[in-house]
Amino acid sequence: MVRNIRSFRILGIDPGSRVTGYGLIDKAGDQLHFIACGVIKASLKMSFPDRLKEIHDGISEVILKHHPDRAAIEDVFVSVNPRSALKLGHARGVLILAAMQHGLPVAEFMPRVIKQAVAGYGQASKEQVQQMVRVMLSLSANPSKDASDALAVAICHANHFKSIG
Amino acid sequence: MVRNIRSFRILGIDPGSRVTGYGLIDKAGDQLHFIACGVIKASLKMSFPDRLKEIHDGISEVILKHHPDRAAIEDVFVSVNPRSALKLGHARGVLILAAMQHGLPVAEFMPRVIKQAVAGYGQASKEQVQQMVRVMLSLSANPSKDASDALAVAICHANHFKSIG
Repeated sequence: MVRNIRSFRILGIDPGSRVTGYGLIDKAGDQLHFIACGVIKASLKMSFPDRLKEIHDGISEVILKHHPDRAAIEDVFVSVNPRSALKLGHARGVLILAAMQHGLPVAEFMPRVIKQAVAGYGQASKEQVQQMVRVMLSLSANPSKDASDALAVAICHANHFKSIG
Repeated sequence: MVRNIRSFRILGIDPGSRVTGYGLIDKAGDQLHFIACGVIKASLKMSFPDRLKEIHDGISEVILKHHPDRAAIEDVFVSVNPRSALKLGHARGVLILAAMQHGLPVAEFMPRVIKQAVAGYGQASKEQVQQMVRVMLSLSANPSKDASDALAVAICHANHFKSIG
């Protein structure tokens, strides 16, 4: 595959202990190009340790297949349910680890910063994010919400790079 | 090394995003034997992703060196500070993953269950746990508090096995 020398590939991750979304885009100059997106599902029938391994192995496979240059992951808003936040922390831990093990720098963004980047304001709904991601990447259909959120994280990271360089 | 066919080696883990304690014991019949203990420190000068990798690599090294048959890890009591619990979740996630990657079954125990197992009651102080661990494993000196807590997790797991088999 020939990639422009100034382009780079970003892996966006929307972490979850049950469903983790991922999305890959290439940024070449001011252009963003969609590469792939999907979800990693960890069956609730598995033990929690098994699910963590499933999540880790799933994202490692995505990295080995698509060779991103950097990763970006949604930060956790510590919500009303600290027990859920804690579970999410475990999933986020193994996802960040997988990126590190493949030598990818990992950026973290708060949900409102991600929404701001794709929809123009921090309180945008899931549906608005989904539609904006579809428009920005010229997709023929809406990706699933988790995959869409992951692409939004990647777009946020791409914009962040534009604004600082 | 010759090990009794009915003995097994337990790795106890006291997880932390800054300091993780570990302790290894052999259980042969009703006897517990101390093997090793120590701490894995992740420097605060590192980025959080780098610290997670340090923690994961540290415990993997311990597993490769001592070949435990099973692992046990302290569960998180979701405390007054959910942000700390979340960070701890990340560390726990990569520790559980490391055990899984080496094929170890992972048991989880709540702090009060661990204290109950070594000190006889669930509200025991850190110092009491430290002294009881020292006595139970016939150690000549107190291990550090984090290592001692990890040994307590291993002892708890050993006792749990006795009570069910």
